[in-house]
Amino acid sequence: MEMSLKKLINIFLLAFILFLVLYAKKIIGIIDVITGKSKKENTLDINNINQNLVKSENAIQGELSLIGEQMQKEIDEGKRHDFDKIVFCNIGNPQAVGQKPITFYRQVLSLLEHPELLDETNIESLYPKDVIERAREYLEKSKFGVGAYTNAQGFEFILDDVAEFIEKRDGYKSNTTNIFLTNGASEGIQMIFITIIRNKRDGILIPIPQYPLYSDTITLLGGTEIHYYLDESKGWGISMEEIKNNVKSARLRGINPRGLVVINPGNPTGQILEIENMKEIIEFCHKENIVLMADEVYQENVYAEGKKFISFRKVLYDMGEEYNDVQLISFHSVSKGFLGECGHRGGYFELVNINPEVTEQIYKLASARSCSNTLGQLMVSLMVRPPKEGGPSYDLFQEEKYNILNELKERSILLAEEFNNIPGLQCSVPQGAMYIFPNIDLPEKFIEEAKKLGKEPDFLWCKYMLEEAGIVLVPGSGFGQKPGTYHFRSTFLPDKDTLRGAAYRMKAVQEKILEEYS
Amino acid sequence: MEMSLKKLINIFLLAFILFLVLYAKKIIGIIDVITGKSKKENTLDINNINQNLVKSENAIQGELSLIGEQMQKEIDEGKRHDFDKIVFCNIGNPQAVGQKPITFYRQVLSLLEHPELLDETNIESLYPKDVIERAREYLEKSKFGVGAYTNAQGFEFILDDVAEFIEKRDGYKSNTTNIFLTNGASEGIQMIFITIIRNKRDGILIPIPQYPLYSDTITLLGGTEIHYYLDESKGWGISMEEIKNNVKSARLRGINPRGLVVINPGNPTGQILEIENMKEIIEFCHKENIVLMADEVYQENVYAEGKKFISFRKVLYDMGEEYNDVQLISFHSVSKGFLGECGHRGGYFELVNINPEVTEQIYKLASARSCSNTLGQLMVSLMVRPPKEGGPSYDLFQEEKYNILNELKERSILLAEEFNNIPGLQCSVPQGAMYIFPNIDLPEKFIEEAKKLGKEPDFLWCKYMLEEAGIVLVPGSGFGQKPGTYHFRSTFLPDKDTLRGAAYRMKAVQEKILEEYS
Repeated sequence: MEMSLKKLINIFLLAFILFLVLYAKKIIGIIDVITGKSKKENTLDINNINQNLVKSENAIQGELSLIGEQMQKEIDEGKRHDFDKIVFCNIGNPQAVGQKPITFYRQVLSLLEHPELLDETNIESLYPKDVIERAREYLEKSKFGVGAYTNAQGFEFILDDVAEFIEKRDGYKSNTTNIFLTNGASEGIQMIFITIIRNKRDGILIPIPQYPLYSDTITLLGGTEIHYYLDESKGWGISMEEIKNNVKSARLRGINPRGLVVINPGNPTGQILEIENMKEIIEFCHKENIVLMADEVYQENVYAEGKKFISFRKVLYDMGEEYNDVQLISFHSVSKGFLGECGHRGGYFELVNINPEVTEQIYKLASARSCSNTLGQLMVSLMVRPPKEGGPSYDLFQEEKYNILNELKERSILLAEEFNNIPGLQCSVPQGAMYIFPNIDLPEKFIEEAKKLGKEPDFLWCKYMLEEAGIVLVPGSGFGQKPGTYHFRSTFLPDKDTLRGAAYRMKAVQEKILEEYS
Repeated sequence: MEMSLKKLINIFLLAFILFLVLYAKKIIGIIDVITGKSKKENTLDINNINQNLVKSENAIQGELSLIGEQMQKEIDEGKRHDFDKIVFCNIGNPQAVGQKPITFYRQVLSLLEHPELLDETNIESLYPKDVIERAREYLEKSKFGVGAYTNAQGFEFILDDVAEFIEKRDGYKSNTTNIFLTNGASEGIQMIFITIIRNKRDGILIPIPQYPLYSDTITLLGGTEIHYYLDESKGWGISMEEIKNNVKSARLRGINPRGLVVINPGNPTGQILEIENMKEIIEFCHKENIVLMADEVYQENVYAEGKKFISFRKVLYDMGEEYNDVQLISFHSVSKGFLGECGHRGGYFELVNINPEVTEQIYKLASARSCSNTLGQLMVSLMVRPPKEGGPSYDLFQEEKYNILNELKERSILLAEEFNNIPGLQCSVPQGAMYIFPNIDLPEKFIEEAKKLGKEPDFLWCKYMLEEAGIVLVPGSGFGQKPGTYHFRSTFLPDKDTLRGAAYRMKAVQEKILEEYS
């Protein structure tokens, strides 16, 4: 009896020690708080702020972009003379590299900012009639103009506009309760990720290469990225084999794949998915119960002959009722297409087959920031409801739209040709979006030098291109790529002469690199 | 020997069992993932999304607001005749209840949306000269107009404008590297909380009552609220005793107090802090190493005689170099003041005494959403740099500004008087901001009925007021209050006749309640 009591005590002692060991870090933390020791370490520094934030990265507006801006400033101030100007090909920001806004859109918005203009006697000599009508319509429907908070989803009449646009595009009815207007697509993506991700065991499948907002947001929220590689040899296509394998191996590591991100048309890779491929993806999400997140912000940017944008929503509904359990969220934006209205921060997302209880939670999240900005919301309405045929603005609108899209198409062909002319670079003509993503065949010695400097080889290469050719690019490592391969992303937004000039200088720099490092 | 081996095995077995027990939930989760069982439960529902989101609340745009909107719709459609209109006093949204925008601001923005107007020959008959000049200046400085992304902090020239405004206000130099332009103050507050909060042991001190964005954001990020009650008997003043006690007791519970939120002028309570009180708060933050977050969005909304807004930043710098370790973040917005430009979603925050390494991380966070909307940024510039004395817009601007602020002051006095005339309500005249927060003395039987219905008593009271007096209020329980006390928040934004009419109806309803439940 005595013996067994001793045993019991031993056991408890042991359990207690084990508990201490397992929870040591937490316990020490709590003791530090109780004794007030932790307050000495509370001054915000890199070690005691949100470590998920510290871990996240920022490829697009990163180091090279800052150096480029500094160089441009020196040129503006007359302190630098090696380049006429720095060519910014790092960011899909069309109006920063010469694209003009669509006249109709801006005319309407100017009247909404200052509705008293509508009372001017000569207003019809200043604005086309359909602009005036549209502005009057918006003012009446918005009730309070652009200066008041809207509800959390956005102006109701714009939700109607978006629903109608989606219905017309896809041939299936859309319900306004499922549409949320956002400050650009980015905010919508962040809101959906906040809703889904609970902890590091929640995994989100993202393409590699990908637009880094996805990986950054997952890191920030403490979830886990599950990568699937796009197949460069097949024009950056999506292989179901690759996705299935990665889902399987994620599960074996205890990671629960809950969401799948598809960017179509692709960023940074510019490919446009085939219907068959989209069907496979939906089939997979159906079978595996994975939420499909479709980044469709480049839906107007389709250049390749015979290619056409089709929304995941349409393909899903086309597949029949059996697939009505596939949860889909689709994102769109005013920043891309032929508008390029990045500064207005307008966008929307639509929830498809999402449980209304969950929609209510997303509404709550949206209402925490009151609403998205009203001008951005109105830009969304203008995007989905362009001037009507026969109206006085129609011809100019069509011309502006055609010119922008046609220019983008021509530039994409031009830039692919120019890049393929540079030794060591290889790429195909992008089918859509605003980017080209060439492969760089780097000399071994160059790779070694980069590693010695603790830099990614393609980062070092892009840095050379900035310093010696005056062009800002984003290294492939910022988007992810197969180990041992190197790439960079360039927009084809600047005008042709600028692109030709930049490619010409890049060729010279690359020849120098090859000579030096071979 | 054999005995002790047995013992050892027993011990390991025990340790293993203990491990299983402690980690049971996690282990089962991982097994479910590995076996693919969890995929069946992956369809998004209220139980498997982010539970912090589910826990967070939404008082301002909550249930009553939705009912109110529905009622207004029925009135608009001629289906409802009990009220001429619903009076929305639930949200600080001035332009939704009749406030007109400042002409100068909107004129400038209209030119920025459509700069071609500047080429019209009769432009000077349409716009005052200083509007044209300002628009030209902005277009030149912005380089690409309003359609391009700016850098993550915002247009550099607007950061300059803000720094100059702060310097002029406080008498101490401000550095643009510490200023970030945001989509309203809300986004800034969320960004700072994301940076600071790591887990549930990180506590943020918030006043009770408070603007619920604070509690909601802390809940969403998984941190812990540490409440400090404002003293209603002393005009909702801040008691250091209260703060100190709550910090102490939080530490004893293992919660590390890292941030202190002060709203000045107060929301929902309208008080303006005395300098002495502000000094104590700074002293406390200095001693306890707590980041001070100053919500100063109502800095222009000061009505009480002899009262003046002074920024925490000025008080901090006035206290001398010794206090240069106090970390302060101050928030401002274009939504309040006399602008009320909520829909434009413009705001900024300034970091004071924050480690540059941390600022860099905040920059990264800001760049994830590319930039805040450009029109909102420009509205910030206009707010901090109004038309110049002597210019053609100056007199109208002064008149508009004076009228709005004077009206707000008169309405605050009127509404306090009206509410104090309603039996059971008690309040003092707000010193500032846009809200009044009366105490409701509720009959015991009413409280019991509410509890039977599972509702907060002041929610039920506000619901009566909506249904029978046609006014949308926010119950005190949405902001927090001392247990056993009941309040509501009302804006004083609608015009005087509307407020008088609403108060008249509220009085009748309250008399009915008192009769029925006494």
